[in-house]
Amino acid sequence: MKVNGEHFRTIWADPRLKSVHIIDQTLLPHRFESVQIHSVEAMQYAIKTMQVRGAPLIGAAAAYGVALAMLYDDSNASLAAACKDLLATRPTAVNLQWALQRMHKHLIAMEPRRRNVNAWKEAVKICDEDVKLNQTIAQHGLKLIQDLLAEKNRAVAKTVVKGHAPPQTLNILTHCNAGWLATVDWGTALAPIYAAHDAGVAVHVWVDETRPRNQGASLTAWELGMHGVPHTVIADNAGGHLMQHGQVDMVIVGADRVTRTGDVCNKIGTYLKALAAFDNHIPFYAAVPSPTIDWAIEDGLSEIAIEQRSADEVARISGKLADGTTATIQLLPAGSPAANPAFDVTPARLVTGIISERGVCVPDQLASLFTEKT
Amino acid sequence: MKVNGEHFRTIWADPRLKSVHIIDQTLLPHRFESVQIHSVEAMQYAIKTMQVRGAPLIGAAAAYGVALAMLYDDSNASLAAACKDLLATRPTAVNLQWALQRMHKHLIAMEPRRRNVNAWKEAVKICDEDVKLNQTIAQHGLKLIQDLLAEKNRAVAKTVVKGHAPPQTLNILTHCNAGWLATVDWGTALAPIYAAHDAGVAVHVWVDETRPRNQGASLTAWELGMHGVPHTVIADNAGGHLMQHGQVDMVIVGADRVTRTGDVCNKIGTYLKALAAFDNHIPFYAAVPSPTIDWAIEDGLSEIAIEQRSADEVARISGKLADGTTATIQLLPAGSPAANPAFDVTPARLVTGIISERGVCVPDQLASLFTEKT
Repeated sequence: MKVNGEHFRTIWADPRLKSVHIIDQTLLPHRFESVQIHSVEAMQYAIKTMQVRGAPLIGAAAAYGVALAMLYDDSNASLAAACKDLLATRPTAVNLQWALQRMHKHLIAMEPRRRNVNAWKEAVKICDEDVKLNQTIAQHGLKLIQDLLAEKNRAVAKTVVKGHAPPQTLNILTHCNAGWLATVDWGTALAPIYAAHDAGVAVHVWVDETRPRNQGASLTAWELGMHGVPHTVIADNAGGHLMQHGQVDMVIVGADRVTRTGDVCNKIGTYLKALAAFDNHIPFYAAVPSPTIDWAIEDGLSEIAIEQRSADEVARISGKLADGTTATIQLLPAGSPAANPAFDVTPARLVTGIISERGVCVPDQLASLFTEKT
Repeated sequence: MKVNGEHFRTIWADPRLKSVHIIDQTLLPHRFESVQIHSVEAMQYAIKTMQVRGAPLIGAAAAYGVALAMLYDDSNASLAAACKDLLATRPTAVNLQWALQRMHKHLIAMEPRRRNVNAWKEAVKICDEDVKLNQTIAQHGLKLIQDLLAEKNRAVAKTVVKGHAPPQTLNILTHCNAGWLATVDWGTALAPIYAAHDAGVAVHVWVDETRPRNQGASLTAWELGMHGVPHTVIADNAGGHLMQHGQVDMVIVGADRVTRTGDVCNKIGTYLKALAAFDNHIPFYAAVPSPTIDWAIEDGLSEIAIEQRSADEVARISGKLADGTTATIQLLPAGSPAANPAFDVTPARLVTGIISERGVCVPDQLASLFTEKT
């Protein structure tokens, strides 16, 4: 998507220089900089420290990580080690496992000397496919947004006694960042919103700041602002109140892993928004490309490993000082411990629908949607 | 309660110096300092800027504000103006209105020259009564905590086949700060927790950081730490996940206003925790001294004015730099707007019980509890 008018993806290869470029997302929104990655170890570091993050982007980054490993050692042992080490960087997003399994299966079947070239090709393919999946999700989600806005306009028109009803705006709440920064391009949850905005459909986004790492305030707000989409940042605490007062028409979130039964594992706090949406009869959607679906599991609550991140992410926060430099400040009193579970699971019963590249379905039809049409 | 071993209240009068002392809560947890207040205008400023905050403490501070006004002008006009200006400082907590009505009613009935002395006396009385109410709440809540812990120990004992079951700890989640800093002393939601800890009952507190002003991370964590109560700070997003995984046994919050039907208006985000507690069959209590009950209203959602605070509280945050100085940093990208509703309303249907000085009752027996026994 656009950054200051120029088109960017979040990750791109430069095979001439034997390197991969990523946007360093830990510097946003205050600095937009790319980092050049030359080794599988550097890619592991980038994933672990969240220079790249977001389930689909983690998958793409891992694929390039394997390609970087193949540059210097195309043996079976090197391939196995690269996959193992990359898999260990983050536990929750299933895309990581999916991408690594795909790379391994593809490369192990060929002669080692062919692996270098083919690893880069396969990683590029994974990226291009991600963009395509997200564009398809955008179109399916756009239809939902158009339908909900038409319904809202009809409902308002009914209350107008004389004259014309003012045209309404659809207020969509999102949590964390499931925009183009979380993918190779377009995003998952934000893809339908970009499509709607570009098509002239009136949308406004409530952006949960998404503590503790503030991906909403720093990434979602930044990319929506760059694209000109009207939005307002709120504390994570505010969404329920806004829903109680009719100020949210729809919730769309991304996911890090979805079970075959439709349980949605996503950034910590998603479950609370799903409860509030359910309590206020507001549709709650997860936008999920198929590599995010874990067909092997059924019960998200008991079967998905939830990453426990450093307490420091709760205790400290970074931002921009008045002089333009960035600084990290301590929020907690000395001696107060903190805990930091990074994801939660929203049970399928709270999910109105899942938007995948195959279309929109209720959670318990996810499996049949994918079986029927293949 | 104790600060570095010394006993403090949050507010105290120094009539010799014609002044009131408050703890400046905007400096906590990094600096513990008191501010001397000499005029009703300075008291309005202290309430508005949240140097003093918390519904019961706002009431006490307003009472002293009237006393400060009477020092210099004991006329009817001065009394009316002081009450009017103090009432306008914060819209949501009903204690403000309650304390000002009490002061006005008490003082208007007497000759102006007697008002100065009597205003100070009445303000002291309001403070002393607050402490007493909270101590009573502490005892009622302590009983609840003891019962829940006994139940938890029995449940665990049942699962032990051989040998003794390890003694359990009761995990209590709280939101915002309803500790002694929110009152004159003891607190509301934290009063039962202090009583339990002091009685040797094993409790551990999950402290919601409570964005955007972080009263949990900066005030609740600080006062629990000072008193030695085991606690862990979490992002506001984390509570639902902890409840899903059996790590929360009970929720206790304070309130800024409770309707006669038991709707609980409290810090923004409380409603989300009540939904999660309800979904996971975890008891959810509000600790509420009677001056926080607004007998005049029935429907909290439509009848309570919710304060909309500055977007700056979402966009910026303050804390301690590595060199020990404090700094404010910008979190949002330039140009991204923010919204900041400060309270929400938890419908009575989600509230297990209300702990008042009269005892513990289900929300819809609140009115009869107070009528029956008076």
